[in-house]
Amino acid sequence: MTTPADTPPASPISTDVLIIGAGPVGLFAAFEAGVIGLSSQIVDNIERVGGQCIELYPDKPIYDIPAIPVCTARELVDRLVEQIRPFAPPLHLGHRVETVERLDNGHWLARTDKGLAFEAAAILIAGGNGSFVPQRLLLEEAVPLEGRHVHYSVPKLDDFAGKKVIVAGGGDSALDWALALRKVAQHVTLVHRRSGFSAADSSVANMRRAVEAREMDFAVGTITSLSAPDGQLQSVELRQAEGSAHLEADHVLVLFGLVADLGPIAKWGIEVQGGRITVDTSNYESTCPGIFAAGDIAGYPNKQKLILSGFHEASLALRKAYNYAFPDKKRVHIHSSYDTKLAERVAASHA
Amino acid sequence: MTTPADTPPASPISTDVLIIGAGPVGLFAAFEAGVIGLSSQIVDNIERVGGQCIELYPDKPIYDIPAIPVCTARELVDRLVEQIRPFAPPLHLGHRVETVERLDNGHWLARTDKGLAFEAAAILIAGGNGSFVPQRLLLEEAVPLEGRHVHYSVPKLDDFAGKKVIVAGGGDSALDWALALRKVAQHVTLVHRRSGFSAADSSVANMRRAVEAREMDFAVGTITSLSAPDGQLQSVELRQAEGSAHLEADHVLVLFGLVADLGPIAKWGIEVQGGRITVDTSNYESTCPGIFAAGDIAGYPNKQKLILSGFHEASLALRKAYNYAFPDKKRVHIHSSYDTKLAERVAASHA
Ligand SMILES: Cc1cc2nc3c(=O)[nH]c(=O)nc-3n(C[C@H](O)[C@H](O)[C@H](O)COP(=O)(O)OP(=O)(O)OC[C@H]3O[C@@H](n4cnc5c(N)ncnc54)[C@H](O)[C@@H]3O)c2cc1C
Ligand SMILES: Cc1cc2nc3c(=O)[nH]c(=O)nc-3n(C[C@H](O)[C@H](O)[C@H](O)COP(=O)(O)OP(=O)(O)OC[C@H]3O[C@@H](n4cnc5c(N)ncnc54)[C@H](O)[C@@H]3O)c2cc1C
Repeated sequence: MTTPADTPPASPISTDVLIIGAGPVGLFAAFEAGVIGLSSQIVDNIERVGGQCIELYPDKPIYDIPAIPVCTARELVDRLVEQIRPFAPPLHLGHRVETVERLDNGHWLARTDKGLAFEAAAILIAGGNGSFVPQRLLLEEAVPLEGRHVHYSVPKLDDFAGKKVIVAGGGDSALDWALALRKVAQHVTLVHRRSGFSAADSSVANMRRAVEAREMDFAVGTITSLSAPDGQLQSVELRQAEGSAHLEADHVLVLFGLVADLGPIAKWGIEVQGGRITVDTSNYESTCPGIFAAGDIAGYPNKQKLILSGFHEASLALRKAYNYAFPDKKRVHIHSSYDTKLAERVAASHA
Repeated sequence: MTTPADTPPASPISTDVLIIGAGPVGLFAAFEAGVIGLSSQIVDNIERVGGQCIELYPDKPIYDIPAIPVCTARELVDRLVEQIRPFAPPLHLGHRVETVERLDNGHWLARTDKGLAFEAAAILIAGGNGSFVPQRLLLEEAVPLEGRHVHYSVPKLDDFAGKKVIVAGGGDSALDWALALRKVAQHVTLVHRRSGFSAADSSVANMRRAVEAREMDFAVGTITSLSAPDGQLQSVELRQAEGSAHLEADHVLVLFGLVADLGPIAKWGIEVQGGRITVDTSNYESTCPGIFAAGDIAGYPNKQKLILSGFHEASLALRKAYNYAFPDKKRVHIHSSYDTKLAERVAASHA
């Protein structure tokens, strides 16, 4: 077992299956793992479960989950969370799995960006389109300023106390952060490419009131360059419908929403084609024995990005994964309706 | 188009997909067909929908339907029936598909035992373990008496008026028919291999009261032979714990429940292995192009008899079936949450 120099050594968490991704497929996978007697741990690099359903369309109705004539994406995730409760799989949110390597004992060692390590008999990658990461400001000069002058999240409000801050974006988090920052910053300008917003009506109304009361500014435009002599941000250039504008700024907080990025997965030595992990459709195993993929990230001829497909893919993958965790045992299928242990667990989880 | 001599000529019902089997998988298949724009017709040889869920364990809880932490098998079927309502696929119950043959135009012609005919661009077989048929009395001499002296259902109660009837079985229908027949028959004996029953407590209590009141008899034992000189049933031999008994009888009504029988499907020229139709796991097509299989009847390495697998298999099969129905069109996937036509249909089905 080698420890890369840049991550703190951590004693790995041992588990039968490591599930990468807490979208609908990763969540259901933890249930199926529990049903067939495998322990599991779930990791997701964002701070909440639900994957695309929660990040991209929480309030939209879904009609094609079998036996659920309609539910919102958020309700779907709530139902899955409720379903896995009997197995209470440990969830590690805010961790991105960065490296995966094979150990001498045939198991897999996975490490996250925050120094967590897992030793697993099998890995199920339910990583969707990749891990969700903030959509970046597409300017070269922004990269060296990241973390000091250009931010994609707000770890501490106080860091902005007395500063001139530009908040870029038109969604709920841009509006909410602009409104919150106006109370500590010297000056806040919200910048959005159009005058309409994709945010709650009440947030938009609050923002407009704050602008009228001169507690903050709002400018329509697109950030086209940053001026930062000696690495210190001074101003931001905006392209507007007519001409352009310069705004003085100490900090730019960019809240353009999340985009999915396959990221590290592409470097694990697994065959990836067109952003999908190539799998065998009878057990959803990748080209690395013991590493499986299910849901949007699994690739095979005729693959459909249907949540119901991910449920099946994960269920079959885990049954093969069982052989890696218990090479000497033969699993016997018990219908859930006759599985008294499962019934007891479900009952206990509601007690 | 040929018409077998033994079925009345019928002008075939035209459809994009013929779905054989109205179990959970066949039902959901009709929904997916509707979503992608295929018309469908469903046929099942029993008189109600739900397949194994309804015939074998309607009141058992199921825990492993994704996003439904628990529901009874009957509730699952009710939910599926509700889900397909927007497409209202025509249901042909009480029809067993007997023959399937290829037409010159590449379509399939399917005929049922009751003379219905379908012309379909594709067929999805969601036939479970085969069609449900009554479990037969395993006695050679019973076969020539079927329909005259040995019965597996009661078309008309009056046929038994004034007769000596033996009702064999220990479930609800055996008890209920024995109780009903005692009012018209000369004499009724219920025969069951043990003194316990798998029937509602109230039916058992009613039966025991009727026996005490001498309105009927009950005998524990197994029917081992029938005596029918000149093809007329005279008596039945029972093996009992100690020795045996002879009971006079004009009719034997056998209600041992249903068993699944692959039956005609094995003769359609499709590859069948171990009772399962061999399919390709990326589109669930059988060895006959245009004939697909999903659910318990589909066979491939690592196949699991999980309802959730059938949902996926049917969904992928129908997307390939689309190419047979519309060879010149390219289907574009729309997420159900963005499918305004679907949303309108769902709303209309509730109006
Ligand atoms: C607008 C929209 C509407 C849709 N409507 C429908 C619909 O009606 N019906 C339907 O069936 N489908 C629909 N879909 C598709 C459906 O949402 C996806 O198929 C589903 O979310 C896939 O689930 P998943 O669990 O595979 O992946 P995701 O939901 O994408 O979740 C993957 C998770 O893995 C995490 N992850 C990835 N890599 C790593 C890593 N290295 N370390 C840690 N975490 C990682 C990500 O952060 C993410 O949270 C819709 C999609 C969109 C965008
Ligand atoms: C006691 C029990 C408990 C179970 N518990 C669970 C559980 O907890 N979870 C789970 O996922 N699965 C469970 N299962 C398995 C599940 O019920 C099956 O996987 C499921 O019913 C398969 O659905 P299906 O639609 O493929 O077939 P079926 O439900 O078998 O339906 C097939 C239908 O096709 C009809 N048919 C067949 N041939 C013809 C023909 N030639 N013409 C016309 N009609 C025809 C039959 O009459 C039947 O109605 C259980 C099964 C049993 C027996």
